[in-house]
Amino acid sequence: MTAAAKFIVVEGLEGAGKSTAISHIQHYLQQRGKDVICTREPGGTPLAESLRNLVKQVQTSETVAPQTELLLMYAARMQLVLNVIKPALAQGKWVLADRHDMSSRAYQGGGRQLDEAFINQLRTAVLGDLRPDLTLYLDIDPAIGLERARQRGELDRIEQEQLAFFQRTRQKYLQIAASEANIIVIDASQPVASVQQQLTTALDNALGQ
Amino acid sequence: MTAAAKFIVVEGLEGAGKSTAISHIQHYLQQRGKDVICTREPGGTPLAESLRNLVKQVQTSETVAPQTELLLMYAARMQLVLNVIKPALAQGKWVLADRHDMSSRAYQGGGRQLDEAFINQLRTAVLGDLRPDLTLYLDIDPAIGLERARQRGELDRIEQEQLAFFQRTRQKYLQIAASEANIIVIDASQPVASVQQQLTTALDNALGQ
Repeated sequence: MTAAAKFIVVEGLEGAGKSTAISHIQHYLQQRGKDVICTREPGGTPLAESLRNLVKQVQTSETVAPQTELLLMYAARMQLVLNVIKPALAQGKWVLADRHDMSSRAYQGGGRQLDEAFINQLRTAVLGDLRPDLTLYLDIDPAIGLERARQRGELDRIEQEQLAFFQRTRQKYLQIAASEANIIVIDASQPVASVQQQLTTALDNALGQ
Repeated sequence: MTAAAKFIVVEGLEGAGKSTAISHIQHYLQQRGKDVICTREPGGTPLAESLRNLVKQVQTSETVAPQTELLLMYAARMQLVLNVIKPALAQGKWVLADRHDMSSRAYQGGGRQLDEAFINQLRTAVLGDLRPDLTLYLDIDPAIGLERARQRGELDRIEQEQLAFFQRTRQKYLQIAASEANIIVIDASQPVASVQQQLTTALDNALGQ
């Protein structure tokens, strides 16, 4: 009997190295015979990708209210959960996600300082009891992460926020990681080989060989 | 001392005559010296209009989950409430709205049969205690309303639903109107002059002249 498919999330600030980590994990799981699909948030379905573009676009004509931003993140997440994540898990496919719910709690809850009760109402309504089996949080000083992101090209609406925004976001990430189960914090300022070694160890420990 | 500005909503199915009613009410209020702004939902701000286009677009590549549709309606509403409706009321402007929250309850709650608890969580999170001072619900048999809408041109994704969807939507509209305060039901199958007379009477009674 094969073990059930797992839902694995990679989280972290801009420039933390999420894409490299996801490539590594995908390769590692596939080598072990897992059928893996990759998702990203916001996005991952045609409609959710349109919402991603809309929410990241620099708006010239009006301010995007933080509450609107949060609702758009959950609308995109709802579409992805119902049309992609849940069907994949039901078919025995592993889901490897570039961001999920922890991002909203960290960015909109920590960064934007939105009311926790508002976020929790949305989480409950949208996610029910869906939770990742494992979250790998790549921790980076935002000053370093943003510099890496800047070198990759133009910054989107959210990436253009002040350093203090990302410091609050990081603080919320660490706070959630310290108080909830199945979240591993990895120091993303280490050399890539060390990060990858830690990812592999975390996967082995958490998921069994 | 002038009376406080009011928030007036016109509701109804496709083809019920909302646009004509809104023109009449706007003219009537302006004649009485009110400063009136008109909004429509989903929409009414640049971002919310983009969401309107997205949610009404016929999607060829995937199904729009009813829950996603609901979240997008509330995201657009959040943006409109924060950036337009509340600031206008605070400045003493009357707000005359082509659809508001009752539409989500009728279309997504009645038509799509979404869980009421899910809708209520969103309502509470997004609207807090904001409620229209007066809602004018134009009641029409959907078979008649849809025929009128069809004559106006191509139908959007939601307008393409089956008749049973609109019958459930109408039933929910009537049920809400019967059980809550400040909602007037107007028979929209009457000649325009009679509808307008009833709108005027309802405004005078509800708002005091």
